Amino acid sequence: MKTRAAILVETGRPLEVAEIGIPALKPGQVLVEVNYSGACGTQVMEWRGEKGEDKWVPHCLGHEGTGVVLETGSAVTKVQQDDRVVLSWIRGVGQEAGGAVYDWAGRKVNAGGVTTFQKLAIVSENRLTKVPVGLSQELGVLLGCAAPTGMGAVFNVLKARPGDSVAVFGTGGVGLNAVMAAAFSGATPVIGIDPSPARRELAITYGATHVLDPSESDVVEAIREIVPGGVDLAAEASGQPAVMKQALQTTRAQGGRAVVIGNAKAGNALSLDPGLFNQGKSLLGTWGGDSVPDRDYARFGKLIASDRFPVQDLLSAPYALSQINEALTDLAAGTIGRPLIDMSLD
Amino acid sequence: MKTRAAILVETGRPLEVAEIGIPALKPGQVLVEVNYSGACGTQVMEWRGEKGEDKWVPHCLGHEGTGVVLETGSAVTKVQQDDRVVLSWIRGVGQEAGGAVYDWAGRKVNAGGVTTFQKLAIVSENRLTKVPVGLSQELGVLLGCAAPTGMGAVFNVLKARPGDSVAVFGTGGVGLNAVMAAAFSGATPVIGIDPSPARRELAITYGATHVLDPSESDVVEAIREIVPGGVDLAAEASGQPAVMKQALQTTRAQGGRAVVIGNAKAGNALSLDPGLFNQGKSLLGTWGGDSVPDRDYARFGKLIASDRFPVQDLLSAPYALSQINEALTDLAAGTIGRPLIDMSLD
Ligand SMILES: [Zn+2]
Ligand SMILES: [Zn+2]
Repeated sequence: MKTRAAILVETGRPLEVAEIGIPALKPGQVLVEVNYSGACGTQVMEWRGEKGEDKWVPHCLGHEGTGVVLETGSAVTKVQQDDRVVLSWIRGVGQEAGGAVYDWAGRKVNAGGVTTFQKLAIVSENRLTKVPVGLSQELGVLLGCAAPTGMGAVFNVLKARPGDSVAVFGTGGVGLNAVMAAAFSGATPVIGIDPSPARRELAITYGATHVLDPSESDVVEAIREIVPGGVDLAAEASGQPAVMKQALQTTRAQGGRAVVIGNAKAGNALSLDPGLFNQGKSLLGTWGGDSVPDRDYARFGKLIASDRFPVQDLLSAPYALSQINEALTDLAAGTIGRPLIDMSLD
Repeated sequence: MKTRAAILVETGRPLEVAEIGIPALKPGQVLVEVNYSGACGTQVMEWRGEKGEDKWVPHCLGHEGTGVVLETGSAVTKVQQDDRVVLSWIRGVGQEAGGAVYDWAGRKVNAGGVTTFQKLAIVSENRLTKVPVGLSQELGVLLGCAAPTGMGAVFNVLKARPGDSVAVFGTGGVGLNAVMAAAFSGATPVIGIDPSPARRELAITYGATHVLDPSESDVVEAIREIVPGGVDLAAEASGQPAVMKQALQTTRAQGGRAVVIGNAKAGNALSLDPGLFNQGKSLLGTWGGDSVPDRDYARFGKLIASDRFPVQDLLSAPYALSQINEALTDLAAGTIGRPLIDMSLD
């Protein structure tokens, strides 16, 4: 059996879309017909080689999507044929079955436990969760990465409560999920910070009570004008060390907490005043918003499907798999929020 | 009324012990006969001017002690005459009545809400807690600072649980309280890290299962040999940015947490790899171990009085108030753990 897939042959060069041969399923692996894939900064960084040396090339990529189970390997109990599933890089219940090695006209193509830039994909059982009832496969793509990362950071890590003041730095796809989560939590004010006017507009649409342009003013000062003493909680979704620093600074003494959601480029350094920690501020890290797919995705799916916010607008107009390089380029340029790749388009 | 007090006249110069006049009590203030005072790195830093410019000189200092209530100002309800009290810089229930201004032969001497390097002290009601029944006034001094800071960091901030692996960097007075708290929590292993052989010995006495000399080996590597993958929890009690970095590095990915207890010098910078946060590690700050005196001190007092560890050895042989400069010098040199100043000695 063969499938079309986008392959990273060399970092910094366009992905190649090619036919690759699918190996037999190993125990714990599942063959999924991918219907939709998303993409995020992680793939842009992989593509550009910003995560450091890539020893896996050539390899498949993509770590968020939705599809339908075609076939299950031995010992798979979590899903069965015809199940509609979310594909997500965050590990849940089930076997960690390792990646697949595809065949590209005699050349090996590596793949991790989940890849989604391809029409058929071998996925490890623990990266699959059923699509919550009532949620479309298009919106389900958000459950693969942006929602658990952005919402999870607010619900699971910051544990925002009604009345907490929250600042979200960077209101792209993940940041907007954090803004929505803060609003869902009853937090107020919810301050969105982004240099892009379009993204500041979006932040308001998704629940921010205030927005700030960091290129126009001293953000830490401007936030203190809204919340004297600093915010209870902050989320950093830009991946820039200077912004992580601002996020920590802007929290209140004696209990303020900032969470880093954005992925930093390899080799970057974050320089902080250690006295901030002595003031009782904390800088929290997270791996996938501390989300547990089997515990959280059904609930997050209900929120996404609730129509309180125009979640569908978080996704771009659909790209075909053959347009994958265009999708990543547009994402990197910030002209779209979250690319949607529709496998039925070519 | 007058009292003898140690006064910081100028940073970097020895404290002067002098007679100063005591003003009338303001509402919410309490006059305490100090029996014992402790001292910690904070006073050493104040004395040396390492906390930045000191705009309060001349001023009294000391923020941990025990004594007996002599007189209460109006509106004080938390304590009454003859109560045995812990004096602590950590705010509890009660009025924040502000500091006192003493008279030094016509010169004003400032003091914060609590000072303890003096025989009689005006203290804000919210800095007083009754000495727990069964605890001596000598050991009660530990409740003023070292125990809530070190134990609180482990109990309240890290929330160590039985079976958690814990590393404590710097096993001076506060660090040893953290080691004890980890042991009381059932954590294992408990790894104490200190360049001083004497302090490593103490760490074992106070519950460490392993000790490491950071000058001898790569600590992060050495800890990974004891706990592959890194420790669940780490506490940093040295105040050195390079050690804060190690503490974070040494925790495990996806959930490891390190807490900064040590006070950093003003102007120091902490440089971190932001990718550590993307791995799901967190660097927590704390103000006084997040301890709430009225909630925590009775419980911490029971642990101190429990005889499981030789807590009295955390305190030095007593110094007289007139030996205050010697006490701070010995503390700064690391030749003693926690100085005990016994006001009855001169
Ligand atoms: Zn993603
Ligand atoms: Zn202290």
